[in-house]
Amino acid sequence: MLKGLFITIEGPDGSGKSTQIKLLKDYLQNRGYDIVLTREPGGTKISEKIRSIILDKENKSMHSKTEALLYAASRAQHVEELIKPALKDNKIVICDRFIDSSLIYQGIGRNLGIENIYNLNLFAMEDVIPDLTLLLDIDMNKAKKRKENRGNLDRLESEKDVFHEDVFNGYKKLKDLYPKRIKTVKANGNIKQVHEEIINIINTFLEN
Amino acid sequence: MLKGLFITIEGPDGSGKSTQIKLLKDYLQNRGYDIVLTREPGGTKISEKIRSIILDKENKSMHSKTEALLYAASRAQHVEELIKPALKDNKIVICDRFIDSSLIYQGIGRNLGIENIYNLNLFAMEDVIPDLTLLLDIDMNKAKKRKENRGNLDRLESEKDVFHEDVFNGYKKLKDLYPKRIKTVKANGNIKQVHEEIINIINTFLEN
Repeated sequence: MLKGLFITIEGPDGSGKSTQIKLLKDYLQNRGYDIVLTREPGGTKISEKIRSIILDKENKSMHSKTEALLYAASRAQHVEELIKPALKDNKIVICDRFIDSSLIYQGIGRNLGIENIYNLNLFAMEDVIPDLTLLLDIDMNKAKKRKENRGNLDRLESEKDVFHEDVFNGYKKLKDLYPKRIKTVKANGNIKQVHEEIINIINTFLEN
Repeated sequence: MLKGLFITIEGPDGSGKSTQIKLLKDYLQNRGYDIVLTREPGGTKISEKIRSIILDKENKSMHSKTEALLYAASRAQHVEELIKPALKDNKIVICDRFIDSSLIYQGIGRNLGIENIYNLNLFAMEDVIPDLTLLLDIDMNKAKKRKENRGNLDRLESEKDVFHEDVFNGYKKLKDLYPKRIKTVKANGNIKQVHEEIINIINTFLEN
C-alpha cells in the first residue's frame, strides 16, 4: 500500500514550475510534512544518465519513438527507485513533470498519439499515478520570453515554434482528459500570486 | 516497400555469434550481395550511447522495466536510422541480436513476460520484422566456458547463473514461437562446421 501523497507540477517551458515547486516544498515542510522533491526526466542516477541523452543537443537525429521510450525508461527507474519507496514511507513526493509531459510532448507534440504514449508509460509506472497535478496555465508569449531570457536551451526547448504551439494547445486539452486529478493554476500573475493560488488548491486537497 | 533482406543472429552469450556473423558477411559479399553488418544494442550513435547505459556494470540498481525500455529505445533508433533505409536500398542487413533477445532476456530472464516485451517492441520496430533468424544452439557448459575465457564481462553477462539458465531454456522455446522465421543452427561443432550449416540454411532461403 502506498500511503504517501504524489503531487506533480506540469506546464510548458517558462511557466514557472521550478520556482513554484520550491515555494510549495518550503510551505509544506513548514507545516511539518516530510517532502521529497524530484524531477523528470531524472531523479535517480540512472534516470539522470538517460536525461543527458534525451536533452543533449548533439542527438539531433533522435527519432520521436526513441525519445518516447527513453522518457518511459527514465520514468520506470524513477518510480521504482525513488517515488514508490517514498510513498510507502508516507512522504509527500512533489515531482517537476511526470506522465502528462509525455502525453503532451510525445503524444501531441511529436504526433505519436496520446493513447500509444499512455500504454507505453503504463508499463513504466504501473499503478503509481499522481494523486494531484497542478497545471500552470500561462500565456504563450510570456512563457516564450521567460524561456528566451534563460538562454542555454536543451534539445527539446530549442525545438521549432510549431512544436511548442502544439504543446501549448495540448496542455489546454489535458485538463479535460483528467478533470478530477488535474487542477489548473493561472500562472500569468507574479510569483506570490501564483504561489497563493497553489496553496489554496493544496489546502483544499489536504482537507478532503 | 522494404525490398532488402533482414537476417538476425540469436543465441546465448558464448554461442559464437560474432565469429559466425563475420564469416557469413564475407560469404555473401563474395557472392556479390550488398551487406550491412550491425548489432544490438547499438548500431547508431544514439543507440550506442543507450547501449553504454544498459551494459555499464556501474548501473547495478537498474530495474528490469528500465532495462527493457532502454533496449526498445535503442532498437527504435536503430530501425529508423539504419535498418529501414538499408532495406529500402535493397541491401541485406545482418544484425547480431534483435527482438528475440529482448523476448528471452527481459521477457523470460527478467520475468517481465514475453507478450509485454513484444508489445513494447512493436512500438519500436513497427513492421520491421526479420525475414530469417539464425538461432545458434549450443551446450550451456560450452557457452559458459567460452564466455569466461573472454573475461571483462558486462552487466548482463555477469548476471547470476540462474538468469543465464532461464535464458538458455528460453532460447529452446523460442523456435516453437516462430517456427517459420527461426532456423536452429547446431553450434557445438568447430567454426567451419557451424559456418557450413549456416551457409546451407542461407542458400536454401535465398533460393526460395
